[in-house]
Amino acid sequence: HKRNHHSVGIIGAPFWKGQPRDGVEKGPDQIRESGLVEKLKGQGCSVRDYGNLKFEDVADDEPIGKVKRPRTVGRANQQLADAVHTIKKDGHTCLMLGGDHSLAIGSILGHAASQKELCVVWVDAHADINTPLTSPTGNIHGQPVSYLIKELHNKIPVMPGFSWVKPCISAQDIVYIGLRDLDPEEHFILKYLRIKAFSMTEVDRLGIAKVMEETCDHIFSKVKRPIHLSFDIDALDPSVSPATGTPVMGGLTYREGIYITEQISQTGMLSALDMVEVNPKLGRTEHEITSTAKAAVDLVLGCFGRAREGSHDPDYCIPKP
Amino acid sequence: HKRNHHSVGIIGAPFWKGQPRDGVEKGPDQIRESGLVEKLKGQGCSVRDYGNLKFEDVADDEPIGKVKRPRTVGRANQQLADAVHTIKKDGHTCLMLGGDHSLAIGSILGHAASQKELCVVWVDAHADINTPLTSPTGNIHGQPVSYLIKELHNKIPVMPGFSWVKPCISAQDIVYIGLRDLDPEEHFILKYLRIKAFSMTEVDRLGIAKVMEETCDHIFSKVKRPIHLSFDIDALDPSVSPATGTPVMGGLTYREGIYITEQISQTGMLSALDMVEVNPKLGRTEHEITSTAKAAVDLVLGCFGRAREGSHDPDYCIPKP
Amino acid sequence: HKRNHHSVGIIGAPFWKGQPRDGVEKGPDQIRESGLVEKLKGQGCSVRDYGNLKFEDVADDEPIGKVKRPRTVGRANQQLADAVHTIKKDGHTCLMLGGDHSLAIGSILGHAASQKELCVVWVDAHADINTPLTSPTGNIHGQPVSYLIKELHNKIPVMPGFSWVKPCISAQDIVYIGLRDLDPEEHFILKYLRIKAFSMTEVDRLGIAKVMEETCDHIFSKVKRPIHLSFDIDALDPSVSPATGTPVMGGLTYREGIYITEQISQTGMLSALDMVEVNPKLGRTEHEITSTAKAAVDLVLGCFGRAREGSHDPDYCIPKP
Ligand SMILES: [Mn+2]
Ligand SMILES: [Mn+2]
Ligand SMILES: [Mn+2]
Ligand SMILES: [Mn+2]
Ligand SMILES: [Mn+2]
Ligand SMILES: [Mn+2]
Repeated sequence: HKRNHHSVGIIGAPFWKGQPRDGVEKGPDQIRESGLVEKLKGQGCSVRDYGNLKFEDVADDEPIGKVKRPRTVGRANQQLADAVHTIKKDGHTCLMLGGDHSLAIGSILGHAASQKELCVVWVDAHADINTPLTSPTGNIHGQPVSYLIKELHNKIPVMPGFSWVKPCISAQDIVYIGLRDLDPEEHFILKYLRIKAFSMTEVDRLGIAKVMEETCDHIFSKVKRPIHLSFDIDALDPSVSPATGTPVMGGLTYREGIYITEQISQTGMLSALDMVEVNPKLGRTEHEITSTAKAAVDLVLGCFGRAREGSHDPDYCIPKP
Repeated sequence: HKRNHHSVGIIGAPFWKGQPRDGVEKGPDQIRESGLVEKLKGQGCSVRDYGNLKFEDVADDEPIGKVKRPRTVGRANQQLADAVHTIKKDGHTCLMLGGDHSLAIGSILGHAASQKELCVVWVDAHADINTPLTSPTGNIHGQPVSYLIKELHNKIPVMPGFSWVKPCISAQDIVYIGLRDLDPEEHFILKYLRIKAFSMTEVDRLGIAKVMEETCDHIFSKVKRPIHLSFDIDALDPSVSPATGTPVMGGLTYREGIYITEQISQTGMLSALDMVEVNPKLGRTEHEITSTAKAAVDLVLGCFGRAREGSHDPDYCIPKP
Repeated sequence: HKRNHHSVGIIGAPFWKGQPRDGVEKGPDQIRESGLVEKLKGQGCSVRDYGNLKFEDVADDEPIGKVKRPRTVGRANQQLADAVHTIKKDGHTCLMLGGDHSLAIGSILGHAASQKELCVVWVDAHADINTPLTSPTGNIHGQPVSYLIKELHNKIPVMPGFSWVKPCISAQDIVYIGLRDLDPEEHFILKYLRIKAFSMTEVDRLGIAKVMEETCDHIFSKVKRPIHLSFDIDALDPSVSPATGTPVMGGLTYREGIYITEQISQTGMLSALDMVEVNPKLGRTEHEITSTAKAAVDLVLGCFGRAREGSHDPDYCIPKP
């Protein structure tokens, strides 16, 4: 394992209005305070932190059907898409710190604006693929994938704030890992569109190594192409990352999470990364908050070249007495 | 994964006298209070709760050899056997909520009364196969299997309260999963009778998926037949289910437990289920009590069709705008 | 699994000066207080406890380059080497209770003095293979392996207290398991010398069973030979063994640790065992201290024949009524 030098562009997205629990807007700074930038530099990355986006409230943002705050979520994602697009044009691998998972709409669309043929690896306890019409809650953080998939386009109603949103990937361009809490409608969509998904049952059956092998086989079936990794911290077990809005028992272990990031890093194709749903306000103790943020940092580090086997510079020599 | 509709008959057995620690008689109600019935209905099961059995004390129940309270345990199991037999005749899959594991005597015999050719999957840290003569403690919850296996019949002494007990399975009809604390005599019996057993060493070696594959191969080697799943909550690691009488480190993870139940459910052959040894009195905190009971509920839900990949009704359609 | 009767010679090494945190010198007695000797006897071992070594301070032990306390560490290890040599001559399997991991120098050299052709299995979060010239900290507990490997001999400067130290194994005679925190220089050395190492990435990829299979294939590639197992308790996850000086997230589970010891025991070739880096002073609660010590004891018991599947004496018979 030789050291690999990444150029990372960080954008913070302190946004919580894709779901009901505030606090997740503190995620970006909590993750930074856990030493993100210094640690990235310490492992040989060059880092540019683009700071946090500022989101404005949209007045009179009434629900459309069940969907809550469509104008606010739509506009925030448009801002984010622009920022991600800029970071990609600047030549960095983009790291988006959420905020709730509705932000994947802007992150992936901004990424796709500069990068054709991208694929998505979505690591999450949830599929987040309800359409505005199937969503039982109306929270947009449970819907982002539905807006992004071409095959679902005719199932999506027109919504204020979303006119700029055009689907950018096909159903075969996304792989899920870690699923364990799906609405029946979401399960139907996954089966109907034949979306590749490794629920925790498959992780248990195959082991995480085989899951990652099959994930790479699937996304690179034709050709190696840029990866957008969208990592919801609730994919990990609540014993590892409790400070999050919708924890579900029986999640990925810390080691499985790290293994996923190491393998993604090894492909050399990581082009953008979302790290979302860290909600410091939901930690019941200081330890729960810091351990959740530390897990998020370690996952990011794994994505940008940290390997547990270690690494060394190619020109190193052992000193002699 | 299409939804499967189960008919569940629940019988509570608030009984603790197969072992020394009271509190396990609160297990059935603790499990119910964790939302068992509503959750079963929520996943499409029809449920009939037959309530809790009432057990009477037997006066002057002196030990026979080392065996403690044989008349009390024998009589309670006879009541349970009748109740299980009724539930099976009523056409349900029987769910017995314990109570201590001595209740498997009545549960399995009552099941066998209505169901020929059943097989048993026994998930437990312990083999519970001491005979009355090998038991180091005399607690009957460490002996139930010895009364049920034909090949051990001539090793079992006559005991008051047990005259109705006739062994109903062969040594080849039972598979153990999760063993990690066996008396030498129990180990001898397992080897002597060539009983299929996956100790935690085998779970570590093979992985839970292969264990379940081999379990099904073994029990269905001739023909698919009804399964009696007897699940001792102490099979899980004490970090998951601490509120139990004889916890042993190094147990099944929550995920492995759920995987077992998902696979049993997938066979379509589950005919009766015991969920035993939840002892609310032994939880040191409220969280220990509720997490143990929640684990028990989740295992039951897995047995009756819940799948982590999700499920949907076959006639579902995605709504269009 | 038939019972195997081991003869165990225990030597305590209450030494902490190979690293900066005192408290690890309490390790030997803490492990004994968790019932080590009684439990070993209870599983059929004969045990001789040689007590604790007494180490004297060396005055004016100034650093040599960065290396801290070379004379103190050198002399302590010389005492330990003599003690281990004696225990081996007495015909026991040697169990060394640390103390910090610098003690492996004396333990392995003392073992090698009586036992040619030994091999080493090093279970640790760390490689402990910095040379005195590469060590970033100067703590000798991060360097012991460098003194022991013949291929590194010309990289080791002369140091006071170390004149008696001659390397006794080749690079191909050691296997690492559990690595996850390596200095770049250490990683270079591992690659340069082609040392067999299973980092946590490999444990995740292969599973612990395959890791142990490949470990045995490697060390026994020519012939079965005596094993020195050097077990740093920090190889286990901090959730299992928190009371240690350099904990690193993402370690071996309790079950993986036990599996390693069961497999080493099964080879029949265990000749000496180090159990090091238990530091009772670093437990934040009584539970953290006792659980760390209990894990250490359970690992030792696994090394000396305890099997989770159980065991029985070959001449046992089931009693009849
Ligand atoms: Mn999500
Ligand atoms: Mn989620
Ligand atoms: Mn048990
Ligand atoms: Mn039991
Ligand atoms: Mn060490
Ligand atoms: Mn270490």
